[in-house]
Amino acid sequence: MNQQQRQEIYETAKNWIYEAGNLIREHMDEPLGIETKSNPNDLVTVLDKQTEKFFVDRIHQYYPEHHIIGEEGYGDTLSEVDGTIWIIDPIDGTMNFVHQKRTFAISIGILHNGVGEIGFIYDVMGDVLYHVKRGEGAFKNNTKLAPLDKEKKLEEAIVGMNHFWLCENKLVDYPVMQKFVRKVRGTRSHGSASLELAYIAEGVQDAYLALSLSPWDVAAGIILNEEVGGIAGDIDGNPWNPLERSSSLVANPAIHQSIVEFIKEGRK
Amino acid sequence: MNQQQRQEIYETAKNWIYEAGNLIREHMDEPLGIETKSNPNDLVTVLDKQTEKFFVDRIHQYYPEHHIIGEEGYGDTLSEVDGTIWIIDPIDGTMNFVHQKRTFAISIGILHNGVGEIGFIYDVMGDVLYHVKRGEGAFKNNTKLAPLDKEKKLEEAIVGMNHFWLCENKLVDYPVMQKFVRKVRGTRSHGSASLELAYIAEGVQDAYLALSLSPWDVAAGIILNEEVGGIAGDIDGNPWNPLERSSSLVANPAIHQSIVEFIKEGRK
Repeated sequence: MNQQQRQEIYETAKNWIYEAGNLIREHMDEPLGIETKSNPNDLVTVLDKQTEKFFVDRIHQYYPEHHIIGEEGYGDTLSEVDGTIWIIDPIDGTMNFVHQKRTFAISIGILHNGVGEIGFIYDVMGDVLYHVKRGEGAFKNNTKLAPLDKEKKLEEAIVGMNHFWLCENKLVDYPVMQKFVRKVRGTRSHGSASLELAYIAEGVQDAYLALSLSPWDVAAGIILNEEVGGIAGDIDGNPWNPLERSSSLVANPAIHQSIVEFIKEGRK
Repeated sequence: MNQQQRQEIYETAKNWIYEAGNLIREHMDEPLGIETKSNPNDLVTVLDKQTEKFFVDRIHQYYPEHHIIGEEGYGDTLSEVDGTIWIIDPIDGTMNFVHQKRTFAISIGILHNGVGEIGFIYDVMGDVLYHVKRGEGAFKNNTKLAPLDKEKKLEEAIVGMNHFWLCENKLVDYPVMQKFVRKVRGTRSHGSASLELAYIAEGVQDAYLALSLSPWDVAAGIILNEEVGGIAGDIDGNPWNPLERSSSLVANPAIHQSIVEFIKEGRK
């Protein structure tokens, strides 16, 4: 993907995102048609589905040769990363969307032959768009994001993680994570993976840990973070695989390895 | 305190809060003069102190007979709740203020003879003011807040709590809190007690639990919640004591007792 192609797709996608954001805001006070997926707290609404369909229909029309991976199943099932792939979460943070009517995002990452080229995380209610083109800078609305602070210490880090890290889980002994919580300066949980990653790129949070996420939860956030020097992958420090569900660790480069080492102590 | 007195103090305090918010926004990009208090993560800045001083000076001038309890020590040491007491947290969520430059609040609760009469929680960067006069309604900016949903179930509740609830602590066996995290729909941690309480009054969060808080962390939030039917006190269900540091549980009335019972299982 050359710069011109990247620019053209970026502009098109950006317009669609603002359009989709308008649709969500217009319809969010109507009945949401809430259903559950894998468990009673895994929510999906009519607007998650309609918003994904909105993007899928447009991509099929404008870029019929592109592939799509989407949370709500309107995309493709892919076994390789060749070509251009849009990775879409129409509403990341559906529980927030339903309960808070805010702190949710449209998240779209666009890869070409496995390389993250373009990313968008749109905080719909805050009207804040985090966006990136590879090699051309990451932005929060019109403000360019600075490279991440290379002097950051773990003791002064704010880490996003949910409370399940401190419950019995398949990946890490929770007593090690209890020590981790006491080691860092503060922990937060906002309920939207893509926004937590945007906050890292913005420098207001320093790491994010998740037990299990899908490609659409993290694609845009990883592309955004890579542009400002953040390191993304799984909790063992392996690089991100855009075709697989896995654990997730995205962090400021100065503390990434320390977190991997810390977790290794309790890794199952 | 009659309605006219309440109205007069309310109007005056509201103007001071907007003025203080302007001062914080104007000066927040200057060096913050960060110091630590009880531990390396208990932060205080020049602006915490200056903002408290701003309120204390004005109260002394305009209401010399009123008492003040403030986080930064410019207030009084009180042993009884007689008369009018201003309970002030000039910047609630100082860690957020320092690291995120957002999601912090000015929190002021005003009591008369032990009864919460007036409350303000001002999300400075969001420019959102939660405010209440007892018996006259609670508001988010100009929007009146509805009474809390009396049909709320614990299984569908969003609960604000920090991660220390799931670490060894003096109050509750953490395995019980691990069960609690799995019982409710979702848990969040925003890093500002007053805003977490405002979110409950707003109906976008259903409970907030804290291991140990001071009166200034919760005064305004409790007055706000009492106006919309929320129940506030300590984790054993005892009523709030505005002169003491204690655990804190503020919740939607439909789930308050269930949470007390849940915690009792693991209470030390």
